[in-house]
Amino acid sequence: MQLSGDYNGGRARTPGTVGELGEFGLIRQLTSRLTTTPAVRIGPGDDAAVVAAPDRRVVATTDILLEGRHFRRDWSTAYDVGRKAAAENLADIAAMGAFPTALLLGLVVPAELPANWPMELMDGIRDEAQVASAAVVGGDVVRGATITVSITALGDMRNREPVTRFGARPGDVVAFTGWLGWSAAGHAVLSRGFRSPRAFVEAHRRPEPPYHAGPAAAGLGATAMTDVSDGLVADLGHIAEASKVRIDLRSADLDVPAQMSDIGQAVGVDPLHWVLTGGEDHALVATFPPDAKLPARWRKIGDVLAPSAQPQVTVDGAAWEKAGGWDHFGSGEES
Amino acid sequence: MQLSGDYNGGRARTPGTVGELGEFGLIRQLTSRLTTTPAVRIGPGDDAAVVAAPDRRVVATTDILLEGRHFRRDWSTAYDVGRKAAAENLADIAAMGAFPTALLLGLVVPAELPANWPMELMDGIRDEAQVASAAVVGGDVVRGATITVSITALGDMRNREPVTRFGARPGDVVAFTGWLGWSAAGHAVLSRGFRSPRAFVEAHRRPEPPYHAGPAAAGLGATAMTDVSDGLVADLGHIAEASKVRIDLRSADLDVPAQMSDIGQAVGVDPLHWVLTGGEDHALVATFPPDAKLPARWRKIGDVLAPSAQPQVTVDGAAWEKAGGWDHFGSGEES
Repeated sequence: MQLSGDYNGGRARTPGTVGELGEFGLIRQLTSRLTTTPAVRIGPGDDAAVVAAPDRRVVATTDILLEGRHFRRDWSTAYDVGRKAAAENLADIAAMGAFPTALLLGLVVPAELPANWPMELMDGIRDEAQVASAAVVGGDVVRGATITVSITALGDMRNREPVTRFGARPGDVVAFTGWLGWSAAGHAVLSRGFRSPRAFVEAHRRPEPPYHAGPAAAGLGATAMTDVSDGLVADLGHIAEASKVRIDLRSADLDVPAQMSDIGQAVGVDPLHWVLTGGEDHALVATFPPDAKLPARWRKIGDVLAPSAQPQVTVDGAAWEKAGGWDHFGSGEES
Repeated sequence: MQLSGDYNGGRARTPGTVGELGEFGLIRQLTSRLTTTPAVRIGPGDDAAVVAAPDRRVVATTDILLEGRHFRRDWSTAYDVGRKAAAENLADIAAMGAFPTALLLGLVVPAELPANWPMELMDGIRDEAQVASAAVVGGDVVRGATITVSITALGDMRNREPVTRFGARPGDVVAFTGWLGWSAAGHAVLSRGFRSPRAFVEAHRRPEPPYHAGPAAAGLGATAMTDVSDGLVADLGHIAEASKVRIDLRSADLDVPAQMSDIGQAVGVDPLHWVLTGGEDHALVATFPPDAKLPARWRKIGDVLAPSAQPQVTVDGAAWEKAGGWDHFGSGEES
């Protein structure tokens, strides 16, 4: 089966279901949508891909997303799910201070799923990879009951040392770049049946991690770094624990946009809670030596202190309630 | 929760369900079972792993396995599923002529699954990785209805050129090493409710790909190579198509062990059919220049011919019926 001439928003539609296309037809169509980069030495279609790793080390991470748990087809298009699934893996590469190079996709799809869904998913993954200068180099597709998107991202350090979670030292400053709480505010809007304000709904559907800021932070001497996937307090907790330090955030430095405050008022939630505990925006948060010159897009929000009793992360010197982040086994809700 | 002192077959049992352990408890316990290698620069627990890639290229492949489709808990232990899931990815690395270095695991588990199941799965993945001198360096665990095991394998070429599927030339010889049809024979036994002959049942539960033979074949000048995952005729069909050649196999050179003939007679199947179309043993099949000196464990089974009309792969000059291999969307059966 060939791509039909029936276009939708610039993207070719594929008629029928994935079951009608068959495994090899689906793989052929998915592969035909991909683009490549000079780093890709052997792309999809062989037993394995071969990707340049000029640094002589490869950075690698994997995440697995399920329909109903990590995304909903009535809230997000396939294209958005693809962008988001790619983004969260690419952000993990950037959070090591590395440059993304390649993605691999493992995909489970029901036979009765419209064939257009995986095609648009692939478009989303491809386009987000391109934002980060990476390419999809391989994958696997199988039939199953629940749509499952498993992505592995690879990256290259370009002769910098990886920025881990265990290098923060007392006296360092804490800073972030990107977005905090936007996805959570969008989730709050969507879960109450609304579709606006659009900026927050869009942020929930399609995060925009600041990929290039990861290697830049490594170049600026970041001592520890992570991306905010579970929530600022929770993810800084991982740095605090790994680095054996305490981290104190200043709420006055955490910008709450006026529109986010409006949503908070409308739904009865302190918007600072979204900023401190909302995941999925994939901001980058890092610790830097006190004399580091941070570019304008990094915002200082706290300090690294000597270790003390729990909690390891405080806000204005005190614990932030309900700041545990997501435990993906603790709740049946879409998160 | 700590590992209990209640042992089973030398492996510590973890009481309760994965839901009771919780996401972080499960990840901690899974991670505690892992071993490392000198290639692992940063292992599990950070945003991403960092693995040596001395060749300046990384080889990468991914596969996704579902319960009920690729494995059954009443047929295979969790440990065997782990061995098999790792093996099929590691074999893809070997089939490029590369040395496996690392695995990443994406795992979906129901909350009510006994916690011991993912632990033994992890043990199996770890042990199979060790057979191939690789290590598990990262992963992701989420809750879902269907047990899903998504593995990505990485490897290093060690300054050899990758052996692809498109280099076979007329005049080359076709040879394989490893096992052919054993898993299919074991599947036939199991699907009829039997548990023996043990050797074939074991081969179905736990393939033994000849990992080291992949780089060795590259060193011997293999012009094309793949691992037999879908069946010999189907996988050679991929080489024939990519290389634009025809391949003819000689059935007299395809060893059918006496015990396999016995099973065939018992269940009314020509055992040669298992040898020619059975997947999942992950033998390596390759084409070599006619003057290549093949070691004893490689067996010559056919020739590469100039392209002609369909079919691209013949047996004793004729098409092999029902030789299409698996289409994973074409059937609801466990394969």
